[in-house]
Amino acid sequence: MAITSDLDPMIDGQVLALAGGVGGAKLVLGLSRLLPPDQLVIVVNTGDDECFHGLHVSPDLDTVMYTLAGLADPEKGWGLTGETFNALEMLGRYGADTWFNLGDRDLATHIRRTQLLHQGATLSEATAELCQRLGIAHRIVPMSDEPVRTMLDTEDGELAMQQYFVKQLAEPKVRAVRYAGAESAFPSPEFQGALDQAKLVVFCPSNPFLSLDPILAIPGVRESLKGFPGPRVAVSPIVGGAALRGPAAKIMSELGHEVSSVGVARRMTDICDIFFIDDQDSGLSPAIAALGIKPVPAPTIMISEADKVGLARRVLAVGAG
Amino acid sequence: MAITSDLDPMIDGQVLALAGGVGGAKLVLGLSRLLPPDQLVIVVNTGDDECFHGLHVSPDLDTVMYTLAGLADPEKGWGLTGETFNALEMLGRYGADTWFNLGDRDLATHIRRTQLLHQGATLSEATAELCQRLGIAHRIVPMSDEPVRTMLDTEDGELAMQQYFVKQLAEPKVRAVRYAGAESAFPSPEFQGALDQAKLVVFCPSNPFLSLDPILAIPGVRESLKGFPGPRVAVSPIVGGAALRGPAAKIMSELGHEVSSVGVARRMTDICDIFFIDDQDSGLSPAIAALGIKPVPAPTIMISEADKVGLARRVLAVGAG
Repeated sequence: MAITSDLDPMIDGQVLALAGGVGGAKLVLGLSRLLPPDQLVIVVNTGDDECFHGLHVSPDLDTVMYTLAGLADPEKGWGLTGETFNALEMLGRYGADTWFNLGDRDLATHIRRTQLLHQGATLSEATAELCQRLGIAHRIVPMSDEPVRTMLDTEDGELAMQQYFVKQLAEPKVRAVRYAGAESAFPSPEFQGALDQAKLVVFCPSNPFLSLDPILAIPGVRESLKGFPGPRVAVSPIVGGAALRGPAAKIMSELGHEVSSVGVARRMTDICDIFFIDDQDSGLSPAIAALGIKPVPAPTIMISEADKVGLARRVLAVGAG
Repeated sequence: MAITSDLDPMIDGQVLALAGGVGGAKLVLGLSRLLPPDQLVIVVNTGDDECFHGLHVSPDLDTVMYTLAGLADPEKGWGLTGETFNALEMLGRYGADTWFNLGDRDLATHIRRTQLLHQGATLSEATAELCQRLGIAHRIVPMSDEPVRTMLDTEDGELAMQQYFVKQLAEPKVRAVRYAGAESAFPSPEFQGALDQAKLVVFCPSNPFLSLDPILAIPGVRESLKGFPGPRVAVSPIVGGAALRGPAAKIMSELGHEVSSVGVARRMTDICDIFFIDDQDSGLSPAIAALGIKPVPAPTIMISEADKVGLARRVLAVGAG
């Protein structure tokens, strides 16, 4: 591929990308178009994982997987293109809770993953098997093979991520977020390998509290990133004082943080060297520079594949120095 | 219901119907149209149960359940009307074996059943829950809450029922049949209750070796039926020397039995008083009578619902003496 050849000299070694769901998947798609499989490790948040109908559902892993497989529904932002929902309708007849939308083909993913886990596979191994079967050459790995659950303390009581986000439409006011199980979790083997060997870290534009913090909550991860020898590049998920998608801005505000790229960067001063902000936020550059982080204004809104590849190219170029 | 009122005086007490899949479901549908829910206990073969994709599939229970719920596909003879197969297609992409057809709505049944079993429900309890949710008033119960697996010793090696029947299209020659696990199984509680209290036993027209024998293999069942005080009525699954459906005739022949109603009746002399044969087989009446069983020629081929109700009415009338 010509594109890859152009970049080959720029990045010498592995790129570690940390991602949540939809926003992360967009930049990851761009990165995957530019880097050969052995140069990219995509580590995905599993704090949103949930058991539905006895099946292990990993929403962020699936969003990234379906995106790289070319199967993601570009309009809904979740699930598979052309999906049907006949099993879910029947589960509803059986009295099951059906507030979490599970399409028929999506269910196959959860059925297969659950079967592999029951047979003794780790979540890393199950994910590798699913990805390989879908023809994905790049490595998509869970942040951990141990369960970590993002729990939101809200005015309606404590809610697991999907209950908060999907069932309650992210409406209850959030007072605190914790990552249950994180204290006894380990980075997955490929994540640890990339922490040890990668030359560049990319924080994808994902929700700071619900997508990136669960990854950072795993013991040793933040410390590894603090001491990481190569460049650490983040892309802001906040543009013009709002999140492009999801409840990031609302939660930041409820937790008392400034709803801006500066507010995001302020929480990353120990683990980030370069911070991409949207062109429309270029006025925030001095405030970010004042944190000791180099601001890089760029077009960060990714709609088309060209947008995604374009932003990924800038990230790699800056990261390669 | 006028029909029920007509029959109320005829059967005083419970009817115990023993059934396999499609043929059994037809007569059971007729019985359910004539008997109020508290007068009918439908005991279904579970020797065909299988684990597919980590899910507990009970094909005969489902056939009877879908039939009584009015959801069964009348043309295919299995599964649900208007079914789609999108999850199965995706499971195939994941490399799963997909020779057993599982529709999307059918999968919901197996997902829900598996979840209930994992939560600690017995198969009887899970079945009752599913039936209740589908609005079925009559009791459909598994023969046992313990696993029993019908295993066929064939020229291709030993095969479980679905492997033999669906994957291998019932083609390999059968040398013997065994019911693995039967020796340590018990009749399900409702089955045992009906064995103790019913006034009439009906053997539905199901495969003798693959549908009824697994039920009879559970310790105590055959003995209870031997000593059963009320009439025991069977409907032959063999008409004109052939099975109406499935491999019953082929297996009977391979195992050295006469492929006829007489061949079926000969194996039931200790547990059957009255034997329905098809009108076209009325010439076999003397041979059946010679076994000490009363033959009753009747129209036994059930296509329409009127056929099913008509045969059920004859069975109940003869059983009521």
